[in-house]
Amino acid sequence: MSTSHTVKIAVLGASGYTGGELLRLIAGHPRMEIVVATADKSVGASLASLFPSLASVLPPLTLESVDIESVAKRADAVFLALPHTKSLVSVAAFLKLGKHVVDLSADYRLKNAAEYERWYNTPHTHQELLKEAVYGLPELYRHDIQKTKLVASPGCYPTAAILQLAPLIARGLVDPRPIVIDAKSGVSGAGRSPSLAYHFPEAHESLEAYKVGQHRHIPEIEQELRVLGSRSCQGSKTPSRNDPIHVMFTPHLVPMNRGILSTAYCRLHEPMEQAQLRAVYHDFYKGERFIRFAEGDASPNPRHIRGANFCDLNVFLDKRAGWVVTVAALDNLIKGAAGQALQAMNLMLGFPEEMGLTGAGVFP
Amino acid sequence: MSTSHTVKIAVLGASGYTGGELLRLIAGHPRMEIVVATADKSVGASLASLFPSLASVLPPLTLESVDIESVAKRADAVFLALPHTKSLVSVAAFLKLGKHVVDLSADYRLKNAAEYERWYNTPHTHQELLKEAVYGLPELYRHDIQKTKLVASPGCYPTAAILQLAPLIARGLVDPRPIVIDAKSGVSGAGRSPSLAYHFPEAHESLEAYKVGQHRHIPEIEQELRVLGSRSCQGSKTPSRNDPIHVMFTPHLVPMNRGILSTAYCRLHEPMEQAQLRAVYHDFYKGERFIRFAEGDASPNPRHIRGANFCDLNVFLDKRAGWVVTVAALDNLIKGAAGQALQAMNLMLGFPEEMGLTGAGVFP
Amino acid sequence: MSTSHTVKIAVLGASGYTGGELLRLIAGHPRMEIVVATADKSVGASLASLFPSLASVLPPLTLESVDIESVAKRADAVFLALPHTKSLVSVAAFLKLGKHVVDLSADYRLKNAAEYERWYNTPHTHQELLKEAVYGLPELYRHDIQKTKLVASPGCYPTAAILQLAPLIARGLVDPRPIVIDAKSGVSGAGRSPSLAYHFPEAHESLEAYKVGQHRHIPEIEQELRVLGSRSCQGSKTPSRNDPIHVMFTPHLVPMNRGILSTAYCRLHEPMEQAQLRAVYHDFYKGERFIRFAEGDASPNPRHIRGANFCDLNVFLDKRAGWVVTVAALDNLIKGAAGQALQAMNLMLGFPEEMGLTGAGVFP
Amino acid sequence: MSTSHTVKIAVLGASGYTGGELLRLIAGHPRMEIVVATADKSVGASLASLFPSLASVLPPLTLESVDIESVAKRADAVFLALPHTKSLVSVAAFLKLGKHVVDLSADYRLKNAAEYERWYNTPHTHQELLKEAVYGLPELYRHDIQKTKLVASPGCYPTAAILQLAPLIARGLVDPRPIVIDAKSGVSGAGRSPSLAYHFPEAHESLEAYKVGQHRHIPEIEQELRVLGSRSCQGSKTPSRNDPIHVMFTPHLVPMNRGILSTAYCRLHEPMEQAQLRAVYHDFYKGERFIRFAEGDASPNPRHIRGANFCDLNVFLDKRAGWVVTVAALDNLIKGAAGQALQAMNLMLGFPEEMGLTGAGVFP
Repeated sequence: MSTSHTVKIAVLGASGYTGGELLRLIAGHPRMEIVVATADKSVGASLASLFPSLASVLPPLTLESVDIESVAKRADAVFLALPHTKSLVSVAAFLKLGKHVVDLSADYRLKNAAEYERWYNTPHTHQELLKEAVYGLPELYRHDIQKTKLVASPGCYPTAAILQLAPLIARGLVDPRPIVIDAKSGVSGAGRSPSLAYHFPEAHESLEAYKVGQHRHIPEIEQELRVLGSRSCQGSKTPSRNDPIHVMFTPHLVPMNRGILSTAYCRLHEPMEQAQLRAVYHDFYKGERFIRFAEGDASPNPRHIRGANFCDLNVFLDKRAGWVVTVAALDNLIKGAAGQALQAMNLMLGFPEEMGLTGAGVFP
Repeated sequence: MSTSHTVKIAVLGASGYTGGELLRLIAGHPRMEIVVATADKSVGASLASLFPSLASVLPPLTLESVDIESVAKRADAVFLALPHTKSLVSVAAFLKLGKHVVDLSADYRLKNAAEYERWYNTPHTHQELLKEAVYGLPELYRHDIQKTKLVASPGCYPTAAILQLAPLIARGLVDPRPIVIDAKSGVSGAGRSPSLAYHFPEAHESLEAYKVGQHRHIPEIEQELRVLGSRSCQGSKTPSRNDPIHVMFTPHLVPMNRGILSTAYCRLHEPMEQAQLRAVYHDFYKGERFIRFAEGDASPNPRHIRGANFCDLNVFLDKRAGWVVTVAALDNLIKGAAGQALQAMNLMLGFPEEMGLTGAGVFP
Repeated sequence: MSTSHTVKIAVLGASGYTGGELLRLIAGHPRMEIVVATADKSVGASLASLFPSLASVLPPLTLESVDIESVAKRADAVFLALPHTKSLVSVAAFLKLGKHVVDLSADYRLKNAAEYERWYNTPHTHQELLKEAVYGLPELYRHDIQKTKLVASPGCYPTAAILQLAPLIARGLVDPRPIVIDAKSGVSGAGRSPSLAYHFPEAHESLEAYKVGQHRHIPEIEQELRVLGSRSCQGSKTPSRNDPIHVMFTPHLVPMNRGILSTAYCRLHEPMEQAQLRAVYHDFYKGERFIRFAEGDASPNPRHIRGANFCDLNVFLDKRAGWVVTVAALDNLIKGAAGQALQAMNLMLGFPEEMGLTGAGVFP
Repeated sequence: MSTSHTVKIAVLGASGYTGGELLRLIAGHPRMEIVVATADKSVGASLASLFPSLASVLPPLTLESVDIESVAKRADAVFLALPHTKSLVSVAAFLKLGKHVVDLSADYRLKNAAEYERWYNTPHTHQELLKEAVYGLPELYRHDIQKTKLVASPGCYPTAAILQLAPLIARGLVDPRPIVIDAKSGVSGAGRSPSLAYHFPEAHESLEAYKVGQHRHIPEIEQELRVLGSRSCQGSKTPSRNDPIHVMFTPHLVPMNRGILSTAYCRLHEPMEQAQLRAVYHDFYKGERFIRFAEGDASPNPRHIRGANFCDLNVFLDKRAGWVVTVAALDNLIKGAAGQALQAMNLMLGFPEEMGLTGAGVFP
C-alpha cells in the first residue's frame, strides 16, 4: 500500500461533525483522496453545501445513500462515522470485500459481546470479528493496528481517560477501585442533530452533568484499563477481564463548541514524589508525537488543541491524601474522533503515522 | 431592629460583580436602603455609570473611598465585599462601633488563625473576633447568625461543596478520606479586574483546571465538614475537629458568565439504596427554602438559578463502587456571594430570612 | 378592575421562552395570578418541569391543551404567545367572552389586512377586529391601550426600531426613503423549537444576516413610522399613511442568549447639531420610565437590560454625511415581548403601568 | 528569491493574536522559516509558552526585544505586527537594509500624510515612503505588490468593506454619498491586551456599537473606494482624492472569538435586476481564489472561514428602495490580518500567491 499512489477513501456518515472533520483532514492528506461520501439524510446535497468551510478543498461530490457494493468498487479504505449499531453489518461487508476499515462507532470496541449487548441493548451480530478488531489507540496498540484491517476507533471520552490513566495503571501504581473520572465536553460531542438539550439558548450559559454513572463509555474505559493493568503488572499478555476496575465516570456538558477536559482521581498504592510521578508519565509516553505535557503546574486546555490531533496531559500529586489527579485535554472531533481514526488508518496503510495530522491548533 | 423603619446599609467594595449584585438585591429589599458605597478605584463615579443595569433602581450615589468613621455615622449595617486581608481591620472597627457586619472576604471564616496565616500568607490581626464570627451558611448556622453581629459569609465553592456533602457527613455515612470535589465555575467568579486569563478570547472556547489541590477554599470546606462530622456523630465514634478530613478539590474555569456546578464523590461506609440516600437529603433539608432538588436523575444546572438565591442538588448512588456522587448548582454571585450575605443579614436584623431574595432565576 | 383583588391570568403558549418570561413576570406581579397555562406540546407537564427556574414562584399548574371556554371560565385576562396565524380565532373568541386580551403574535398588528395576507400567506379571518386592536407600544399608544380590550403587542425588532426612530419621524426631521435598519438579535428570539440553525455548535462562534429585505417585521415597522410621520407633520407637508417610507431591514443572528441591538441610519432634511438632536430625543421621551439614554457617546448594550423592561437609546450625528445614526438595545424577551405585553395589560386593567416591571437587569 | 531555498522570516510583534497566526501560517509554509520573533513584553519567553497551540510546529525560539540590525542580519523578510505609530521608523530601517517588509499597522496605509496625522494624532515621519508603499489587498493591487518591497497590509474591517463594495464602486453603479457600513467583529480583533471592555463577563452576552462614525478605519476605506471609483469610471489612474465618498461606518463588538461580518448599504444610480447585480460581482472577482460567494440568498458567516484566508460575499437587491445590500465575512486574524499579509509576502517574494494559505476553515 505504501506506494506513491493515493488511496481512495470512502466516508460513511459524512454529514455530521466527525464526518466533516474526516473530510477536512483527508482533503489535506498527501496520499489520500475522498471518492465517496454517504449519509442517511441530505442525500444528493453537495459536500460544499453541508460544509461551506470545505468548499475550496473538496472534490465536487454529492452525498450518496449507502450502497456497500458500489462504495467498495470505488474505495480502497473506509471510515465509518455511523451511529452505534449501524456499523455492525457494514463493517463485516467491507472486510469481506478486502477493504481497510476504521469504524468510529462503538460496535467493535468491546471485546465482550455480552457487555456490548448490555450497554447497547442490541445483540452483537458479528462476534467473530471482535478478535480481529483492534482498539484504535495508536499509543497503546500501534503494532496491532499495523497488522489488522479493522480498527475500532475509541470514543472521545475514553481517549482522554485511558491516555491520562495508562501510565499509572500500566505501572501498577494505583488502586483502581474506584477511579473517579470527571469529564467535561463541548457540545459538538453530542453530534449535529438538533434537540432541545443542545438548542443554543438551553446550552449556552449552561453547565450540567448527565448520565451519571451510566454513560456507555464506561465499559470501554474499564476494558482498556484492565488490559493495561494485566499486561504490565504480570509480565504477561493475558488480561483477566474480571479484574475489579471500577470507573466512576461523570460526563458534563460545557458551553463551548469543541474540546474535552477530563480530570481523573485515583489512590496511589505507595507514596510517591511529584517528580517521580511526572517521570513515570514522560517515560511512558517517550517519543509519542501526539502526547504533550503542560508546563509546570499549568492545566491542559482544549483551546490549545482546536483542530489538532494532540492529547495534552498533566499530573498532580495530592500528598496529604496520597491520591493522584491527572488532567487531559483533547479536541473531541480530532484526537477524540476524526484525527485518531486517520492516525490509525495511516498505520494500517503503511503511511507515516502523523501524515496529514501535523497541523497546529487554531488559537484563539 | 425589626421595626418598620428601613435599615441604612453600606456596601464596601461596591464596584465589582459581587458589589453590584449586593446593590441590586438591596435595592429590591423592602426594608433596606443603600446609603454609602465605597471602592478603591473609580472613586467619584456614579453607581449608575459602573452598573448601567441598576441606573433605574439605585439612589443617585457616587463611590466614596473608605472612611470608616464616616460610613458608620450614616449606616446601620455593613457589607464588606473586599479582597482577602483587606477586611481584617475594617470588620473590627465596625463591630466596635456597634454595626452589624457581613464580611464576604475569607478573613473571618477560618476558626484556626494559624490555618488562615498558612493559606493567606499574612498574620491574622484580630484573632479575638474569630469566636464571635459565625460562618454565614444559614442552612447550618441559622440560630448562631441570629445572635451575632459578625457573619463571615462563605465562598462560592464552599457553599456548593458544604451543602452538597452536609447530609452525608452529618449522618456519618461516608468516609471523608478523601472526598473528591470537582468544581466548575463561570468567569465572574474571578472578579471584575481584567487579566489575560479572563480576557475574552482566552476564556471563551476554553476550559481548564487551576490551582489543583491548592485553592484557598480547601481549608474552609474541610473546617465545616469537620464540624458537621463532629456535631452529629458525637454520641458514637466521637470524631473531633481534628479528624482527618481530606478534601481533594479541583476548580475549573468554564466559558460562561455565572454559575457553579460542583460534583463531589465519596465512599459510603455501608451499602445504601438510592431511595434511602435521597431520603437522607430530603430529610436534612426539610423546610429549607433555598435548597431545591432536581427531578429524577436530572442534573442541577446553573441556568435555572441565574440571579436567584437557590442551591439545587441531586445525589446519585454508584452501587458497584459503593460511592456516592452529588451534584450542586448555584449562582456564584448570589447564593455563592451577595444573596447568601443578604440572607444572613436578614437573620441578623430580625427580618424574614427570604426577604428580598424571592425573585426567580432569569432563563434563558 | 382596579380594585384590590388580583386579576386571574391565562397564558396561552406558555412553553416557549416568551411564555416563560410572562410566567416569571406575572408571578412577581402584586395584582395578577396565573390560573391557566396552555401549550400545544408538553400537555400535562408541570410548569416547574418546563421552567425549573420558576419552580419556587409558580402555583403548581400543569400545561393544558387550549379550550377557550374552559380558559375563559377561569381567567379574567389572557396573554396569547402563539405562533402567527394561531391567534386569529382565539383572540376573537376571548373578546366575545369579554376578556382583556394581549396578543403577542403578529395577527392583529397590521391594520391593512391585505398586507397581512401578503406577508403571512394566509387570509385574515377577523378584519373587523383590526380597528379595535391597538398596537401595544405604550410609549406611543398609551391612551388607546387604556381604552381597548385588544392589544396587538409589537415584535421585538419593531419595538427597537420604532422607538429609536420615532422622535426623528414624528418631528419630520428625516427623509424616510430609505431608512436603513441593521439589527442584531440573540438566539432566544428564534424561539424554543430546536432546528439546525440554532443548534449550539452551529450558532456559537457564528454570525450571519438572514431574510435580508424579507423579514415579516418590515411592514410593521413601516406602518408605525407612517403613522408617526402623518400624526406629527400634518400641519406642514401633509404626509399621509400612504407615504413612501422604505425600511431596509437586515436582521442578524448573534451568538448570545438574549438581547437586541438595532442600529438605524437615516438622512436629515436639514443640518442639525448633536446637542439639538439629543434634545429632540430627550424631549420626545420625557417622563418615559422605560426609555433610558446611554451616557455620552456610549452605546446601549443589552447586557445592561437582561431581564428588564427597558429600551436604551443613543443617537449620533454624522455631520459630514448629514445623516443620523441611532442605536437601541432591549431584551427581546422583555421589552421585546413579555415585559411590553405586561406593560400594556397593566394599562388595560388600570394598574400602574410599571407594576411588576421595576426589576433591574441582571449583570453580568 | 524564487529559488528552492526557504526565506528566513522575522515577525515583530509576535506575542499578540495576529502575531500568533503569522507564526502558525509561516510554520506551515513550505518555503518560509521563522528565525526571529520579537515583542515588547514577555521578552525571553519561549514561543511555545505564549502559544502552546504552536508548541509542536515552531522552532525553539524565544521572544527578543527589537534590535533592527540584529534582526536584519538573520532575516530576509519581515512582518511587522506592531501597534500603530510603532512601525514608522522600523519600516524605513528595514527597507534601507534591503528587506521585504509587510507592515500590518496603519502607518503606511494612508497616502495622504495629513490625513494620517489627523486620525492618528502624530506626524508621519517618513512621508517619502508613502509612494512606495502598496496597499496590500492582492485582489486589487496584485501587480503593484509584486513589484514593491513595502506592503501596507489592510485593516480587518477595510478588507471586508472594500472587497464587498469594490465591484459596485469600480463599475460606477452606486452613489457613494453616503455608503452605510455596519460591521460586526469578534473580540480577538481588539488584540490580546486585557482591559475591562474585553473582560469575559463584560464581553459575553454583550453586544454594542463603538466609535460610531469615528473609527480609524474610515479614511482607509474611503481612500480605497475613491481610488476604485476614479480608476474605473474615468479610464485613468488619476484618482481625484477629493471625490466625495462618505462612508458611515459603525463597528460593533460581538461575543465570539474570531470573525467579521460586514453589511453595507448603498443606493444604485440606476435600477438593476438581482441577476445583473450578481453577475457584476462574479465577473469582478473571476478567478480570485480567496473570494467565495454564498449560495442563493444565504448569508456569509465567519463560522465557515475560521482559520482560513477567504472572504465570503453575497449581494442583495432591495428593488423597492433601489438600494443594494452586500454582506461580507472573513476571519479578522487571517484574511483580515495574518493571512492577507502572507498572501502579499508570497507575491513580493515570487511564490504562488496561495502558498501556505490553502487550509480549510475549522468548523464547528
